[in-house]
Amino acid sequence: MSYETILYTSDQGVITITLNRPEVFNAFNEQLSADVNDALKKTSKDKSARVLIITGAGKAFCSGQDLKAIAGSQNRSLSESLVKRYNPMIRAIRNLPIPVICRLNGVAAGAGCSLALACDMIVAAENASLIEVFVNVGLVLDSGSSYFLPRLIGSARAFELSTMGSKVSAQQAYEWGMVNRLVKPEDLDAEVNKLAEYYAKAPTKAIALMKKMLNKSFHSDLDTLLDYEVYCQEIAGRSSDYKEGVNAFNEKRKPDFTGN
Amino acid sequence: MSYETILYTSDQGVITITLNRPEVFNAFNEQLSADVNDALKKTSKDKSARVLIITGAGKAFCSGQDLKAIAGSQNRSLSESLVKRYNPMIRAIRNLPIPVICRLNGVAAGAGCSLALACDMIVAAENASLIEVFVNVGLVLDSGSSYFLPRLIGSARAFELSTMGSKVSAQQAYEWGMVNRLVKPEDLDAEVNKLAEYYAKAPTKAIALMKKMLNKSFHSDLDTLLDYEVYCQEIAGRSSDYKEGVNAFNEKRKPDFTGN
Amino acid sequence: MSYETILYTSDQGVITITLNRPEVFNAFNEQLSADVNDALKKTSKDKSARVLIITGAGKAFCSGQDLKAIAGSQNRSLSESLVKRYNPMIRAIRNLPIPVICRLNGVAAGAGCSLALACDMIVAAENASLIEVFVNVGLVLDSGSSYFLPRLIGSARAFELSTMGSKVSAQQAYEWGMVNRLVKPEDLDAEVNKLAEYYAKAPTKAIALMKKMLNKSFHSDLDTLLDYEVYCQEIAGRSSDYKEGVNAFNEKRKPDFTGN
Repeated sequence: MSYETILYTSDQGVITITLNRPEVFNAFNEQLSADVNDALKKTSKDKSARVLIITGAGKAFCSGQDLKAIAGSQNRSLSESLVKRYNPMIRAIRNLPIPVICRLNGVAAGAGCSLALACDMIVAAENASLIEVFVNVGLVLDSGSSYFLPRLIGSARAFELSTMGSKVSAQQAYEWGMVNRLVKPEDLDAEVNKLAEYYAKAPTKAIALMKKMLNKSFHSDLDTLLDYEVYCQEIAGRSSDYKEGVNAFNEKRKPDFTGN
Repeated sequence: MSYETILYTSDQGVITITLNRPEVFNAFNEQLSADVNDALKKTSKDKSARVLIITGAGKAFCSGQDLKAIAGSQNRSLSESLVKRYNPMIRAIRNLPIPVICRLNGVAAGAGCSLALACDMIVAAENASLIEVFVNVGLVLDSGSSYFLPRLIGSARAFELSTMGSKVSAQQAYEWGMVNRLVKPEDLDAEVNKLAEYYAKAPTKAIALMKKMLNKSFHSDLDTLLDYEVYCQEIAGRSSDYKEGVNAFNEKRKPDFTGN
Repeated sequence: MSYETILYTSDQGVITITLNRPEVFNAFNEQLSADVNDALKKTSKDKSARVLIITGAGKAFCSGQDLKAIAGSQNRSLSESLVKRYNPMIRAIRNLPIPVICRLNGVAAGAGCSLALACDMIVAAENASLIEVFVNVGLVLDSGSSYFLPRLIGSARAFELSTMGSKVSAQQAYEWGMVNRLVKPEDLDAEVNKLAEYYAKAPTKAIALMKKMLNKSFHSDLDTLLDYEVYCQEIAGRSSDYKEGVNAFNEKRKPDFTGN
């Protein structure tokens, strides 16, 4: 199966979704959000998937909603668009039981910025940038940015980026902890591949549990998280990968994790 | 109407409240907190207000509670003072449907520090500083600092500043993300005015909604915030400013936002 | 009373717990966690205690669970171990009504990393490091790290450290706000002692209340924290230390806080 507006590849546990409308900087029209949502569903059902990379074709990562695609339809319901198209995408990424890496190859704007921030980690090329453009057309943050921004950079910086629509360079984002890796554009693939290879051979079940734990962290109290850690550790402790991990440790060799 | 202990000006959508007891570094006595509370009420009723600046006259921003004003009244109820004077001020700032900029011209101590941190953004002069002095007299953080500090600088730094009463230089605060802009004292007005001018011509309704969203962020889970974004985006999408924003985009011109 | 696996000293309000299994980098076996839990209980009952230091003997701070101690018992319940041994330790530290300083003399790994992060402040030697090793054996964060990490360094860095088991140098941890002080190894004692002396003469009751407030911060909304500040300030305002603090201020002398 192939898609109209994205590229979808799967290689030894590494799934890659490439937004592929480079002529409009990978702006979201109906088809693109439908394709991404379908690809995320497909990924969640793929038992062999160990890590997902999301990136953009061409110069940009994703420029957000395609305003041309909605020209002449100013009365359309913005809320319907969020409920049906964008929020399912964000929820799917955060609920996916594998790590999601954003390969930030260029600008991420508006819903494209939210898409990048929804990923568990971001590897950014030095010429990439993030920008919450909503305010420039009189709109508010959406697709999860109001959740992600303060958790990444604190409340004062979050307010500024949101309400001024400031462009944040990859360098600045790296220093602030919004992105995990900063590399020269020509090194972007090597760095992303290095991470993908790590995760493709990592104890995926434990990582999926940690993703759930961390997703609960800020809004939960210590007792809740200690209890949840107990619940998750009990599951992890019954996994094949834990057995393998301890055996490898005792035998002083590298573990061979299957993800189960 | 004029006030006894503050200056209140309104100019093309920019409201400025200047704490004006420079002889005591703008320490709060009963009159000053009453005046600020009244001025905040007035601002919230002013339909033309687009942005509020809070600053101090003279060398200091605000040195907190005037300890001389309460000398000899050690048995007074501290809680009554918070409930009636300080907490309404902090709540009013956070609930004000316009951005609030702190023009940090000098030291902000105790409740004065909380007042600065309650603002949505801080522009600091290089010689300014922030200090949670409560512990020095055996008291605890109040006026919202226990809410603001960890959200700005994380839990380890928040504990240190709170319990050691450490003075944080503007430079340090800038690096840590407590303040948004760091400028030479002689450039403070220019920088504050630049921001005020931006906000006075910005889509105020959308900014007010984003302020509410961000105020909910840390203690809410993703689903709650996605739902709230939908609710807010629907409101923003029906605003005049959104119509203007899209029209300006299509016509390749700068939008003329009225704030409605 | 003396312990088998820890050193416990008390000197003028300064309690020190030293994990003392240097031959295994202070790894936790049953005895060590039992000893630490007992020592924490003892500290909480010691009315003269004003500050607690936790450190490790030898080269390491604490290398986490002693995997050799559980070799051959892969079917043991990990959850039972957390519920009975580790979580009580973490809860005790966070509920202790005095500040807890981690003297980070070397590597802190796994549950040892959680132990360090559970402390209110960390003073780190330049050669120390923190590492969430759980993932290396197919396990998940435990002993509170899923609570502490995002609150210290934000969500993107927290995900990376948790799922990659990355070693964080003391230098990096300092820049990110995970540790409060970074010193040369030979200056570690001097710096820790300076902090301990400060806290041993500080208004301990106010600090205990602030610790509780800050522990509630991220998951609580502004109204909840404003109310809680009022409650705590009323208690602090009735303390001897507040009377002493105001008197000392008026008399322009250093206060002599008893901690009550």
